[in-house]
Amino acid sequence: MSAQSEFSLIQHYFEQLTSPRDDVLLGIGDDCALLQCPADHVIAVSIDTLVEGIHFFADVSPETLGHKSLAVGLSDLAAMGATPAWFTLALTLPEVDKDWLQGFSQGLAKLAQQHNIHLVGGDTTRGPLTISIQVHGFVKPEKALQRNGAKVGDMLYVSGTLGDAGAALQQKLNQWNDKSLTKEDMSYFTHRLEQPSPRIELGQKLLGLASSAIDISDGLLADLNHIIEKSHVGACLDLTKLPYSPAMSKIARNEAIQFALNSGDDYELCFTVPPQFFSTMEQDFKGLCTRIGMITDDDGLYFINDSDELIELKGTGYDHFK
Amino acid sequence: MSAQSEFSLIQHYFEQLTSPRDDVLLGIGDDCALLQCPADHVIAVSIDTLVEGIHFFADVSPETLGHKSLAVGLSDLAAMGATPAWFTLALTLPEVDKDWLQGFSQGLAKLAQQHNIHLVGGDTTRGPLTISIQVHGFVKPEKALQRNGAKVGDMLYVSGTLGDAGAALQQKLNQWNDKSLTKEDMSYFTHRLEQPSPRIELGQKLLGLASSAIDISDGLLADLNHIIEKSHVGACLDLTKLPYSPAMSKIARNEAIQFALNSGDDYELCFTVPPQFFSTMEQDFKGLCTRIGMITDDDGLYFINDSDELIELKGTGYDHFK
Repeated sequence: MSAQSEFSLIQHYFEQLTSPRDDVLLGIGDDCALLQCPADHVIAVSIDTLVEGIHFFADVSPETLGHKSLAVGLSDLAAMGATPAWFTLALTLPEVDKDWLQGFSQGLAKLAQQHNIHLVGGDTTRGPLTISIQVHGFVKPEKALQRNGAKVGDMLYVSGTLGDAGAALQQKLNQWNDKSLTKEDMSYFTHRLEQPSPRIELGQKLLGLASSAIDISDGLLADLNHIIEKSHVGACLDLTKLPYSPAMSKIARNEAIQFALNSGDDYELCFTVPPQFFSTMEQDFKGLCTRIGMITDDDGLYFINDSDELIELKGTGYDHFK
Repeated sequence: MSAQSEFSLIQHYFEQLTSPRDDVLLGIGDDCALLQCPADHVIAVSIDTLVEGIHFFADVSPETLGHKSLAVGLSDLAAMGATPAWFTLALTLPEVDKDWLQGFSQGLAKLAQQHNIHLVGGDTTRGPLTISIQVHGFVKPEKALQRNGAKVGDMLYVSGTLGDAGAALQQKLNQWNDKSLTKEDMSYFTHRLEQPSPRIELGQKLLGLASSAIDISDGLLADLNHIIEKSHVGACLDLTKLPYSPAMSKIARNEAIQFALNSGDDYELCFTVPPQFFSTMEQDFKGLCTRIGMITDDDGLYFINDSDELIELKGTGYDHFK
């Protein structure tokens, strides 16, 4: 097969991702895509790269990799409360592998359709497997959730459960195991690591309610630190309130806390809510979100532990250059 | 040095690229950037990846690599007639090398300042050297230059000179040499390969004049083919009219024609102009652009050669998956 045909082949796999939207005046096939932003909105953009051996294992299935590549960006849109619209894909591949392309594009397409986000441009090159996706969404600028809006007295919440992805990662690296867990528990952790659910709907519901938000990609502590640094506040975290999945609830409490605080890839939202909306949160977000602490005027992060003691955190130790 | 400090270090190098613009409501440092599109305009976007060993030599200087990484995207904006606004950078690096980062960011910054395009987001990861840049510009949708607007009777133009970058590439690959060329000639070719000048200003001047346009990244024939395919027309190319640099004019005519037609990386514009604007082109674009043929109703591409013979082109043979 000629290289020219190979290229057409690649395009073919991604056609399912390019169904028309009225705001795409020109999609794939010209020097640029031409995109229309709705009036009174601004465009929220984020770009993320996944590299084989750094962000995913070489043996991950192409479907789950397609899902995760897009989920990471969608999670950033969720954290701003933005409505997904378009994405671009810069895909570097060592070779043209039909089965891989079929699986990868299907994983991508399934999540894309779920969130009505469409492929508008891309570049396919030969080289070590690397996937960069830029997502674009819409949000009203005065409502967009940012990291810098937390105020003293706001309550601190997270969505879903924490630490599941971290447990899967440590287990895959052969650095952790727990005999009380069943195969189903481990499958659940793996699913959470490989196929995170970006909290798009929740992010939009929080517009006008939350004072700040971030998605948990680097671990709760590292990401909460971004909120308190940008907002010039402190936070007190009640370690007895951290939400765990049924699987995570089976393991030793100290281990679960470590996973919840320090492991990344959960892609839940961490956000703050001012006092006037506490009752709304309790009523409308019950079961979706958990109150885990509050914003304080102390610098830095404090914990309340099981014995009701207040402990100051020293450093997060997270490596951003991964 | 801790990994955390390494990351701060990387950010430091790119700060010079993030000077404020009124339309950047939120730049680097949150989950997304928030960007405002001017009224009556749409956003033109394009993403391109450069991989070491595929798109550039491992020994290229970081300054020129920084320049070229952005120039490739700017050239796509030029081909639409768009005004550059913002870019994002997904940078994958094998290690944190201060000198490299200093050079790369300076090369990028110099070209960015020249075209008033600002860094609004990015991702830095560890892995094989790979650079993906997405550019964003503004254009009025009814005026944007596209590939599909060429009409029978339009004249065909190119900007600048052709084949210089291809000559440098062939020489670097030790596949070509010409003893009539001086060191200065070869330096000129290399400069054209490594530091192309995106034709942003020209693209904007062509709004309302050109009926179609494309930038020459893959070679004149391959790119002109995109115009005639999308426009459902043919073209006749006068090989006696191809514009050459003084250096290119020194080599054998047949070799120069080959470089001009088949080698990529020139990043000139190829465009078509309808009859009512021929005199404008002759007056206002003299010395900037050269008329090299016309659009016909024959399918495919024909040449007029030195003997005034008409020859049909069979295939372009270009490998897009590079």
